[in-house]
Amino acid sequence: MLTPSMEDYLEKIYELMKDKGYARVSDIASSLAVQPSSVTKMLQKLDEQQYVTYEKYRGILLTKTGERMGRSMKQRHGMLEELLRMLGISEEVLRGDVEGIEHHVSPQTVTQLQNLVSWFQTHPQYIEAFTKYRSEENGRRPTQTEDGNRAT
Amino acid sequence: MLTPSMEDYLEKIYELMKDKGYARVSDIASSLAVQPSSVTKMLQKLDEQQYVTYEKYRGILLTKTGERMGRSMKQRHGMLEELLRMLGISEEVLRGDVEGIEHHVSPQTVTQLQNLVSWFQTHPQYIEAFTKYRSEENGRRPTQTEDGNRAT
Ligand SMILES: [Mn+2]
Ligand SMILES: [Mn+2]
Repeated sequence: MLTPSMEDYLEKIYELMKDKGYARVSDIASSLAVQPSSVTKMLQKLDEQQYVTYEKYRGILLTKTGERMGRSMKQRHGMLEELLRMLGISEEVLRGDVEGIEHHVSPQTVTQLQNLVSWFQTHPQYIEAFTKYRSEENGRRPTQTEDGNRAT
Repeated sequence: MLTPSMEDYLEKIYELMKDKGYARVSDIASSLAVQPSSVTKMLQKLDEQQYVTYEKYRGILLTKTGERMGRSMKQRHGMLEELLRMLGISEEVLRGDVEGIEHHVSPQTVTQLQNLVSWFQTHPQYIEAFTKYRSEENGRRPTQTEDGNRAT
C-alpha cells in the first residue's frame, strides 16, 4: 500500500527518469522541497517494497512495478490538472488542489474522471455549452469570501 | 484555519443540530467513530477558535461562523457525492473518495464543480450523452487491476 508521500516520490522519480534519463537524490530533494536525508530514507523504504532499486553509489532505478506506478501517478496528476483547467480554475489554485486531491481518488473514480475529460476534449460543443453556463452562473452569484462562503 | 478533522466535526455537529435539534458528545463520538474524550478535546479547540460554544453541562452550540462553516462543509460533501454518482461510481467507493477529497478542494474549485453538477442536472441531454460515451469507453478499455493500473 502506497502512502501519499510514496506516491509523490514515485511520480517525481518517474518524471526525472523520463526527462533526464536518471534521478539523483539531490534533484528529487530540490524538486520535492525536502532534505536529501529524507529522500535517502524514502528510497530505502521504496527499495524494501520493491518499487525501486537503490544503491548509494550506483543510483536509483525504478522496478517494473515502480515504473508502472510512477506513470500512473503522473497520468492521474495531469488528468486532474486538465479537469480543473477546463473548469476555469487558475493555475496556482489548481496546483494546490491537485496535490491534495490526487492521493484520495480511487482507481474507479480516476477512470471516470478521465472519461469526463476525454468527452469534453472530443466534443467541443459540450465544453462550450458548459463554459457559457458557468460564466452566466458566476455572474449571477455573489462573490466568494476567503473562507469559501458567499458574502452576504 | 480549519484542519480536515475540524471540518469533519463541524459538518457532523451541523448535521446533528439540523436532524435532532441538538448535538451530544456521545452522538458525535459514535457517528465519527472516535472516543468521547477526543470529542471533548476537539470541542474545546473549536470553542477557543469561536466555532462553537461548549460548556460541559450546558451542551454544544454552533456560533454564527461555526454554523456557516458546518453548512458549507455539508453542501460541499453532498455536491462531491452527487458528482461521483453522476460518473457512475458505486456508493461504497464514492463515500471513501469524498471523505478524502473534500478537505483538499479550494472554494474556487467547489464553486466550479457545483456548476458542473448543476449543468448536468439541468441538461439531461448532456448527462445522457456523457453516460453513453463512458459506457462505450468502459467497454473498450481492459479491466483495471487492484492498484489502479490496467491489466496487460
Ligand atoms: Mn502529484
Ligand atoms: Mn464529510
